Amino acid sequence: MERLVYMNGEMLPEKEAKVSIFDVGFLCGATFFESLRTFRHKFFKLEEHLRRFEMSLTYAGLAGLITKGEMSDIMHRVLDANIHITDTEDDIWMCAEVTPGRAFPMPLIEQQDKTPTVIVYSSELPYNRYLKYYTEGKHVLTSIIRNISTQSLASRAKNRNRIPHFLAKSEAAKKDPEATPLFLNIEGNIAEGIGANIFFVRDGILYTPTVKNILNGISRLTVIELAEKMNIKVIEKDLALYDAYNADEAFLTTTSYCILPISAIDNRKIGDSYPGPYAKKLLDAWSKKVGVNIVEQAQKFAKKR
Amino acid sequence: MERLVYMNGEMLPEKEAKVSIFDVGFLCGATFFESLRTFRHKFFKLEEHLRRFEMSLTYAGLAGLITKGEMSDIMHRVLDANIHITDTEDDIWMCAEVTPGRAFPMPLIEQQDKTPTVIVYSSELPYNRYLKYYTEGKHVLTSIIRNISTQSLASRAKNRNRIPHFLAKSEAAKKDPEATPLFLNIEGNIAEGIGANIFFVRDGILYTPTVKNILNGISRLTVIELAEKMNIKVIEKDLALYDAYNADEAFLTTTSYCILPISAIDNRKIGDSYPGPYAKKLLDAWSKKVGVNIVEQAQKFAKKR
Amino acid sequence: MERLVYMNGEMLPEKEAKVSIFDVGFLCGATFFESLRTFRHKFFKLEEHLRRFEMSLTYAGLAGLITKGEMSDIMHRVLDANIHITDTEDDIWMCAEVTPGRAFPMPLIEQQDKTPTVIVYSSELPYNRYLKYYTEGKHVLTSIIRNISTQSLASRAKNRNRIPHFLAKSEAAKKDPEATPLFLNIEGNIAEGIGANIFFVRDGILYTPTVKNILNGISRLTVIELAEKMNIKVIEKDLALYDAYNADEAFLTTTSYCILPISAIDNRKIGDSYPGPYAKKLLDAWSKKVGVNIVEQAQKFAKKR
Amino acid sequence: MERLVYMNGEMLPEKEAKVSIFDVGFLCGATFFESLRTFRHKFFKLEEHLRRFEMSLTYAGLAGLITKGEMSDIMHRVLDANIHITDTEDDIWMCAEVTPGRAFPMPLIEQQDKTPTVIVYSSELPYNRYLKYYTEGKHVLTSIIRNISTQSLASRAKNRNRIPHFLAKSEAAKKDPEATPLFLNIEGNIAEGIGANIFFVRDGILYTPTVKNILNGISRLTVIELAEKMNIKVIEKDLALYDAYNADEAFLTTTSYCILPISAIDNRKIGDSYPGPYAKKLLDAWSKKVGVNIVEQAQKFAKKR
Amino acid sequence: MERLVYMNGEMLPEKEAKVSIFDVGFLCGATFFESLRTFRHKFFKLEEHLRRFEMSLTYAGLAGLITKGEMSDIMHRVLDANIHITDTEDDIWMCAEVTPGRAFPMPLIEQQDKTPTVIVYSSELPYNRYLKYYTEGKHVLTSIIRNISTQSLASRAKNRNRIPHFLAKSEAAKKDPEATPLFLNIEGNIAEGIGANIFFVRDGILYTPTVKNILNGISRLTVIELAEKMNIKVIEKDLALYDAYNADEAFLTTTSYCILPISAIDNRKIGDSYPGPYAKKLLDAWSKKVGVNIVEQAQKFAKKR
Amino acid sequence: MERLVYMNGEMLPEKEAKVSIFDVGFLCGATFFESLRTFRHKFFKLEEHLRRFEMSLTYAGLAGLITKGEMSDIMHRVLDANIHITDTEDDIWMCAEVTPGRAFPMPLIEQQDKTPTVIVYSSELPYNRYLKYYTEGKHVLTSIIRNISTQSLASRAKNRNRIPHFLAKSEAAKKDPEATPLFLNIEGNIAEGIGANIFFVRDGILYTPTVKNILNGISRLTVIELAEKMNIKVIEKDLALYDAYNADEAFLTTTSYCILPISAIDNRKIGDSYPGPYAKKLLDAWSKKVGVNIVEQAQKFAKKR
Repeated sequence: MERLVYMNGEMLPEKEAKVSIFDVGFLCGATFFESLRTFRHKFFKLEEHLRRFEMSLTYAGLAGLITKGEMSDIMHRVLDANIHITDTEDDIWMCAEVTPGRAFPMPLIEQQDKTPTVIVYSSELPYNRYLKYYTEGKHVLTSIIRNISTQSLASRAKNRNRIPHFLAKSEAAKKDPEATPLFLNIEGNIAEGIGANIFFVRDGILYTPTVKNILNGISRLTVIELAEKMNIKVIEKDLALYDAYNADEAFLTTTSYCILPISAIDNRKIGDSYPGPYAKKLLDAWSKKVGVNIVEQAQKFAKKR
Repeated sequence: MERLVYMNGEMLPEKEAKVSIFDVGFLCGATFFESLRTFRHKFFKLEEHLRRFEMSLTYAGLAGLITKGEMSDIMHRVLDANIHITDTEDDIWMCAEVTPGRAFPMPLIEQQDKTPTVIVYSSELPYNRYLKYYTEGKHVLTSIIRNISTQSLASRAKNRNRIPHFLAKSEAAKKDPEATPLFLNIEGNIAEGIGANIFFVRDGILYTPTVKNILNGISRLTVIELAEKMNIKVIEKDLALYDAYNADEAFLTTTSYCILPISAIDNRKIGDSYPGPYAKKLLDAWSKKVGVNIVEQAQKFAKKR
Repeated sequence: MERLVYMNGEMLPEKEAKVSIFDVGFLCGATFFESLRTFRHKFFKLEEHLRRFEMSLTYAGLAGLITKGEMSDIMHRVLDANIHITDTEDDIWMCAEVTPGRAFPMPLIEQQDKTPTVIVYSSELPYNRYLKYYTEGKHVLTSIIRNISTQSLASRAKNRNRIPHFLAKSEAAKKDPEATPLFLNIEGNIAEGIGANIFFVRDGILYTPTVKNILNGISRLTVIELAEKMNIKVIEKDLALYDAYNADEAFLTTTSYCILPISAIDNRKIGDSYPGPYAKKLLDAWSKKVGVNIVEQAQKFAKKR
Repeated sequence: MERLVYMNGEMLPEKEAKVSIFDVGFLCGATFFESLRTFRHKFFKLEEHLRRFEMSLTYAGLAGLITKGEMSDIMHRVLDANIHITDTEDDIWMCAEVTPGRAFPMPLIEQQDKTPTVIVYSSELPYNRYLKYYTEGKHVLTSIIRNISTQSLASRAKNRNRIPHFLAKSEAAKKDPEATPLFLNIEGNIAEGIGANIFFVRDGILYTPTVKNILNGISRLTVIELAEKMNIKVIEKDLALYDAYNADEAFLTTTSYCILPISAIDNRKIGDSYPGPYAKKLLDAWSKKVGVNIVEQAQKFAKKR
Repeated sequence: MERLVYMNGEMLPEKEAKVSIFDVGFLCGATFFESLRTFRHKFFKLEEHLRRFEMSLTYAGLAGLITKGEMSDIMHRVLDANIHITDTEDDIWMCAEVTPGRAFPMPLIEQQDKTPTVIVYSSELPYNRYLKYYTEGKHVLTSIIRNISTQSLASRAKNRNRIPHFLAKSEAAKKDPEATPLFLNIEGNIAEGIGANIFFVRDGILYTPTVKNILNGISRLTVIELAEKMNIKVIEKDLALYDAYNADEAFLTTTSYCILPISAIDNRKIGDSYPGPYAKKLLDAWSKKVGVNIVEQAQKFAKKR
Repeated sequence: MERLVYMNGEMLPEKEAKVSIFDVGFLCGATFFESLRTFRHKFFKLEEHLRRFEMSLTYAGLAGLITKGEMSDIMHRVLDANIHITDTEDDIWMCAEVTPGRAFPMPLIEQQDKTPTVIVYSSELPYNRYLKYYTEGKHVLTSIIRNISTQSLASRAKNRNRIPHFLAKSEAAKKDPEATPLFLNIEGNIAEGIGANIFFVRDGILYTPTVKNILNGISRLTVIELAEKMNIKVIEKDLALYDAYNADEAFLTTTSYCILPISAIDNRKIGDSYPGPYAKKLLDAWSKKVGVNIVEQAQKFAKKR
């Protein structure tokens, strides 16, 4: 009943899942990854995740380090190894990571061993960490830390250079334990949350930042796809805090919770019911699409850890 | 005769030195570190390194995770455990790293276990990777990648969010295998190399970028200190490529090689003897200060790995 | 026959309409306001103005200081009190302002008295200040002063931090008494005029800056709405001086004059008849929509003050 | 026993001190001002304040609106009128303001009446608002709002376009009632507090931002002058949050409290005694210079209002 | 059989085609120009070129220096004078330039002689310089030099301030003799190549940078027009290197070669056949539109020069 | 009695001094140059000019195109050829220019002929264009055009990409025929005039912008040198318009007039006597240094051209 982690060809218990301290993933945070979840024990949007993963590697000049097919096989292997622990109505979350492998850790960093490090692991969905926000809404606080500029590193290449995330999370928690941070980009436009995209509703239109300086979340794309099917207009544009504060409704999107209502941004109240009408419509459509009532599943399986 | 690594209280062989894949150092690249070297088997500028380390942790809101005294003790323990492998006239390089410990790796990242991960390891000095540049000069190519803005993450807090380093190194190597990259900051001013600071000499004055957007290297500070003792004027200011291309002499500074002459920047020839007069004077003064002829030591112990 | 001003519940003659020197509206320029006009003695786009007003307050964290209904009532009260002075074919202009009330004016500013200051007043339309430009076109000069960045204060929140307006107006007047200034934003894109938005026509398409760093004028929105009804394409995008100088036609929009033709930008001649064909079409449509010939009304009631 | 306010030639009770709603000071926040205090019932640095005032007016193109001599006379008149209410060992705070006078409040703002509005008033020093911070230290939180760029309005011209101040104060208070905000400028460098400058001490050197994008406070200049007299080195340069978090000591300076110790910046603890050694030395020197023990005076006369 | 150049009314042999060293075109690079080519001995998109030329002059405040009609006449005169040298199945390239004429070359530059300098010349198409890239693809390297900001000079006004082009070309050639540079703009977005625009294909959609900071190439517009006719979606937006590296296909567009496939960007391989499917479709449509097989013509008439 | 121009080895009359339209100097404005003058028929600061010229070429990757010795010889040859026309108490101005030579003018610009184009010519000093400003002061107007960013082209490399100069001059002249423009850089700091540097005096200290984004004028360096000899403090720093408007005195420096007083900046009056006390002192020292009374020489030989 212990979860197993895939590491470079082996299946190991979580406790033994470790990387060398000389791995470039540890030395440079040069880990490129995807996180995805299952619905009814099947991967959601697997092809989209594999494709984005390929794009992250290509961006980093690492195209071909691992193919989509190889990665898909490993992910299924991890799913098969771990899914039996899961209730048939519950689901799991999975993370697939690749680093360029080991290097010599000096200023003139040079890789010695070009074998990539491949790690895939799964976990329970952390329902208890977000369940209550479906009905209460999450607090959002704009961070004083800006997300890393595309001139330094493309946010779209999903990667582990996330000290700004670490700092921003800690900053938000000290100001309001219920709050999650919102990044602006260097130009001062709204960017994204921590591993989450943000949407605003105003007069029946969905607004979300362009992909210029954010992760192009698969959940973000799912919301856009669902909205378009329901004839809800979606506009991707540069957005400012004025837009955020004046939203009729706002929500975050990510792999685990899918859509999470926001009840306040920088202490301005947003909306008055949670989930708001659009978040609700989208959660319903998403639930229907995947055959799982997303919120009810969270309610059923949430527990304190 | 095997080197040992300190990991959270234990001394392990290098092969076994691994971090959990759930460590924040791996999940966010949130590793803060120092690298230093010995001269005559004694740490060089230990107090300065410990102090900068403390500043990195304070910046990250992690003050108190480990004290300077604790870290110093561990470093000496690692030195004691490994120095016997080293020739009495040779020296070693050491790296001390701290991460906030393990976390649950989800979008709403939350640390479960607040015990920091502490890693200290040593290695041979990689003389063979830089020896020839003392006399030939290194090529430098300005990178198209800008170093991370202080608005996102302070470069002065020595950390492992170094994908831009990884990308820039790979970019430079493809253009010229002898080249190392030079970062500009977001404003377009000269910043730093990969784990190295840069100095220019013009009309007998040393110029180096301000610390605004770079690591404030201990080697950098050593050069400033040595120069001041020799009555060589040092100016810290915003510098542009025009300054670099028109330098009479230029060099990199870092822990291992101390001072490395540059013979070309963006294919403009710099200087005509390597080390140039100022690099030579400074290397001599440094050698005298530490009681080790830095270049000769490299010559004596260099070997192909 | 004297106009009355509403001030915190009272109706006062203009001369007596004063705010305390300790009012935050005076101490910080923290006055949020709307200005609108009547057509045929009825407010034009009242609901849109009330709504934008609400958004300004929400942006400032002052939601609830006054409701739309309360403000609407006061505005009608001021209209009723003053409209009788106006010729039945003439119209009036009105300004509604709210400040957070009084404060103690020290560096550690703290409000003592949370009762907002509410001011509503009306005036004649200043036809004589703009009448001739309908047929001659206005001169526009790009200001050396950039409008305030959204990173400091959202231009969309209509407010009284307008020293840049004051400076720019004075700058323009010294260079050309017929000129009104045009602001660029910090990035160098065209922003807006003084309390006015700007439109360009090129090949039958209307271009106007996005709302990112400007006031989202109700007159601007009216032009967009009228244009769309006449199947004239409107594109909101980042515009540069190249676009301005090469416009076939250009005009300003604001509450009082509605649409004002531009005949020169930075001494480049724009168009050759005023109003140009599109300005004319739009003025006609606007006049029809409101049942008032806008230009003729100005001609009829203009007088030197 | 009621304080009197100077307004355009008259001495009025505070309650009657009001400006027309058509004053440019209210319409544009175009009020330029100085605030200063007495020590032993004499103005502190009067000439410096008059001079900076003149510079603010010159910047705004309003040179000559009022001369230094005229302003000085009025200030003394207000002092004379009000000082008798004050305990002989207590002191007062004064504010002198000038606006360009009345205007017609339309988009094409035009001044009708070029007579400036001149206001001078005094108050008690609000000791009770800051007394405890002398010994406990103040909390500082970096604001998400950046101070207005010099490209739009020079911070050095002391003026009333202070909505960013209003917003930042409200933001800080919601996060921590003990906190005062710190502004970064558009480039991300540390700028200033609300009507206060900031100093950091590190290794016995005082650091403070350059005047590029801040008010050049007279208190700031006094600290620099006192430090230089005590042979304490002062460096004015671009500073980042890394500098702030790693200060040995930090303090704010302004007219009323002179020097106020900071005990935390963004939840990083600063120093461990308040006032810290440098703040103490400077407060002592300042007290000696003016013949008033600044902290003791505050203790003696503080009272809840 | 010698080509003739039009210079201010005269037809001169190329060798004699010279401008005064006091011409503003030489003193300031203040030459505005168009380059175009023939297909079947007729100008391609002549009206579009004349119009853009007019816009460049208007931008520079030189409207009316020469009319579209006058320029067209001269261009035809040069065509007539030179076309007979050309094979009937071959074509020519032409360049039309205007400068404001002569000036006195001192710091206080003042024009003495307001007669513009008008130059029109033609040449063979340099097939041999690009032929092989139709089938092999061109290498592209992002330049460390950013193209000139619109805040200084509008790239859309086709002009001869091209030292950045000169520097970037030389930089690229040193790194890879097969490479041509790609400019980013000051904000870090993809701009353009040297006298060439860039397109990316991803999932069947064409992406190209907005015109904000680039030349709005006639070839660029032709590709957009052809694509739209073939129902291929074209999106103009801010693009980053992530977009470039992850393109399925990429190509340059300019007057001479029309469309040139790209096989690598910053050493990331792009596509796998050259021309890629979209470049091929567009080259075919373009060839059909102009009655000339563009690639075959290049093959037939290429020769080493 | 006709002046002769050196062109690639020949001495030609001015009328015949022409460059090929295929010269890179004309095609890209890629002309690097120096302008200098004589005092008592001897070059002023020749070595400094030759050295800066070398730096411009090095910056452009053209080191070695011509040596300092070769250039010096040519300059003396031109001096010898032309000086006899000049009154023994008058002096001359000289311009030395180098371009990389001819190229093929297509998008894939490639130089065919690597022989540089070398041009040296002299002229009378244009006294009549600036004489009156010695005693009346020059008007300065900040331009809406920013000077080219160092990220695109180093202003310190004296070059002919000067369309922004051309545009700014024309802009200033239209607003005030007595005015010369002042450039801000992209960040909004004061940069330079047209071929001229700017100095401000405040409280007996000279302020001038750092060299980051300007030409490092030899006249600028001469003023600094003279000031230092007279124990006048000179501070090079980022300056804003606030500094300019509040200067006690301001002046421009360039080769021809040396020092030119400024009487107004953006319509703010600067100083009240021209030359102001510091300009006068510096002009006197300069005159003494070169053995020529600079202002009297201009008075004596000024004439209308």
